[in-house]
Amino acid sequence: MTTQDILKQAKGCCSILAAADTETKNRALHSMADALIANIPAILQANEMDMSAAKDTLSPSMLDRLALTTQRIEAMADGIRQVAQLPDPVGKVLRQVQRPNGLIIERKSVPMGVVAIIYESRPNVTSDAAALAIKSGNACVLRSGKDAFRSANAIVNILQLGLLQVGIPGALVQLVQDTTRESARELMTAVGYVDLLIPRGGAGLIQNCVENARVPCIQTGTGICHIYVDKEADQSKALDIIENAKTSRPSVCNAMEVCLVHRDIAEEFLPKLHKRLVLDRQQPVQLRLDSSAAAIIPGIPANEADFDTEFLDYILAVAVVDSPEQAIAHIGQHSTGHSEAIITENAQTANCFTQMVDSAAVYVNCSTRFTDGGEFGLGCEMGISTQKLHARGPMGLEELCSYKYVIRGNGQIR
Amino acid sequence: MTTQDILKQAKGCCSILAAADTETKNRALHSMADALIANIPAILQANEMDMSAAKDTLSPSMLDRLALTTQRIEAMADGIRQVAQLPDPVGKVLRQVQRPNGLIIERKSVPMGVVAIIYESRPNVTSDAAALAIKSGNACVLRSGKDAFRSANAIVNILQLGLLQVGIPGALVQLVQDTTRESARELMTAVGYVDLLIPRGGAGLIQNCVENARVPCIQTGTGICHIYVDKEADQSKALDIIENAKTSRPSVCNAMEVCLVHRDIAEEFLPKLHKRLVLDRQQPVQLRLDSSAAAIIPGIPANEADFDTEFLDYILAVAVVDSPEQAIAHIGQHSTGHSEAIITENAQTANCFTQMVDSAAVYVNCSTRFTDGGEFGLGCEMGISTQKLHARGPMGLEELCSYKYVIRGNGQIR
Repeated sequence: MTTQDILKQAKGCCSILAAADTETKNRALHSMADALIANIPAILQANEMDMSAAKDTLSPSMLDRLALTTQRIEAMADGIRQVAQLPDPVGKVLRQVQRPNGLIIERKSVPMGVVAIIYESRPNVTSDAAALAIKSGNACVLRSGKDAFRSANAIVNILQLGLLQVGIPGALVQLVQDTTRESARELMTAVGYVDLLIPRGGAGLIQNCVENARVPCIQTGTGICHIYVDKEADQSKALDIIENAKTSRPSVCNAMEVCLVHRDIAEEFLPKLHKRLVLDRQQPVQLRLDSSAAAIIPGIPANEADFDTEFLDYILAVAVVDSPEQAIAHIGQHSTGHSEAIITENAQTANCFTQMVDSAAVYVNCSTRFTDGGEFGLGCEMGISTQKLHARGPMGLEELCSYKYVIRGNGQIR
Repeated sequence: MTTQDILKQAKGCCSILAAADTETKNRALHSMADALIANIPAILQANEMDMSAAKDTLSPSMLDRLALTTQRIEAMADGIRQVAQLPDPVGKVLRQVQRPNGLIIERKSVPMGVVAIIYESRPNVTSDAAALAIKSGNACVLRSGKDAFRSANAIVNILQLGLLQVGIPGALVQLVQDTTRESARELMTAVGYVDLLIPRGGAGLIQNCVENARVPCIQTGTGICHIYVDKEADQSKALDIIENAKTSRPSVCNAMEVCLVHRDIAEEFLPKLHKRLVLDRQQPVQLRLDSSAAAIIPGIPANEADFDTEFLDYILAVAVVDSPEQAIAHIGQHSTGHSEAIITENAQTANCFTQMVDSAAVYVNCSTRFTDGGEFGLGCEMGISTQKLHARGPMGLEELCSYKYVIRGNGQIR
């Protein structure tokens, strides 16, 4: 089927789901999960084909993202069932007023309609995204990366089976059958068919969407996350937080990329940082240092680009700043607006930082790694928005909804 | 100043306003209103130049939109003072949770940053938009249509004076000094400088923005609004509502453009409609009828385009439908998603209509003319969104805000 046909089908049936009650949607989700579990061998087989086709071109960490196991598929099914447990975001009365003229005005949450998701090589995104779309009453059109296409296709076929088994159109979850750039472009320009486009992936994909999308689009993901260690920091907390933010999972968008250290404590703190991230670690972090930091600890001299790079690796750019204000200014200039943290015991400095830093998540004395739908208590996540329109930070079910006004009267005119 | 310079200035100073308290913003608003009142002659003079330049090219109704009087300027100042009375949308804690690990996560409303507004020939939009931007903590960059440029420029200069008088940078309210298409394009593509773009105007402007905007943009305004008269309608209510929705102000986006009538009552109702809208009126409405309606009452035969046209005039397209479902399907196909109404005494039919019609405002037994920030109790309006992302329907102060997460911990790592 062409991408156009897929979009038409999705648009054609999305109102069925928009009108479905919570129980119907949850039954669909459990049936999708059951279908995954019942068809593990077929998914593994498709995934093996993806893996063997990609083994010479992808890095080990990318291959690991692509790989499925029985356990991972079970986790995908569990993930779907967890979405079923979440509160239904649709049909909530967000606001209700009675006007002096007697009109009753309700603002009610409704699904977006058709949500398109362009992603790359993690096959589990396929089932996660489908589950969140169904629960929020949306049809979804998925466009997987080339490397994961066979896996994603097998998963979507099985999810459709699950939907059909409870009498719900399979066309509510569809996979674009073409992994060329053209199909991404078709989704980006499908005005009237795509109500929300979410690109999930690297900086290149996001940039492509920002430049080419004509449909409503949410920028997600790219995270050049900063941690600023204030002169009034508890330095032992700072070391724990930085090690966690940098090394617990360097490939993800909420991992730390840049450390800013107040000049007054740089002589004392930087050697501790060097010990913690380099000397004490089996997998040392490569430090890229501005000239002030390089005068204190060993490391690679940073070039300008290092402060504008999402390394997604065991690499950390380090700079010394003169004040919280300078740290805030540096972040304003170099951040992608994802997550930043300050380590300080001074509440006033912390408040100034949280007020002035214009990012989706601003932390005081904890790791940037918490920017995540699950960690925020949303129960799930469709991506992390780094823009300010509609959704910011982790996007859960509510962020996949719009609202409409319903106004009841008895003949009022204006 | 070039548009680029204006944008840089706006971006450079918007954080000052983002951090300002309510009292400071209100003082700025009152000072802006005072400045308008103190400079009425200068504004009238600029407006006279606009009027005389436009008198041969604009229609009388467009000239009326452009014209300012002392009274209209006083109303603009009053409008600004009313915005000062509204609750501050910034800094509200929209949600707060304490997670099991002790993290306290707050979702707090924050300004967008820089809001750009492209509009056409109503000079009062200049002060309205500026007031809403200031109250919501945003810098605004305004781009007026050519016909109103002198008026808008005089108004902006005077508003800046008002800001400066209370020590607030005038650059928070700026007018683009170029009214060519190029300046609109510059705003649409100012990625990193414009946080929100709102086009306010005709279908051509909106379309241009949808096709060319690279910055987050909200579609506003175009309204092909339908009223469906059900077989169980109170026909006298229906006539009052239709006359109001069509004729009280035909040039606005919430005016009715299409009437759908249930076949079972068409023979009875259409002659009443013809009498009310044509025979009984000094300014008769031109009816454009589908074949079924044309078999019952006199009027002009409708062509296909008539059901996809925002007439903004004393013209109404009329069609006969077989059922509420057919009315809903017609609306789904032809509506711009602005405002639709059903007239029925059957609550179940009404619920089905409000559920299935996917428009910003769905009315039962009242006029579509109520789609308006003031009528909805928002106290103001920056435009009416016909898209589903971020804001839908009348946009008030809250809709000019984003949010950020502020997370406080004491050393938490993940």
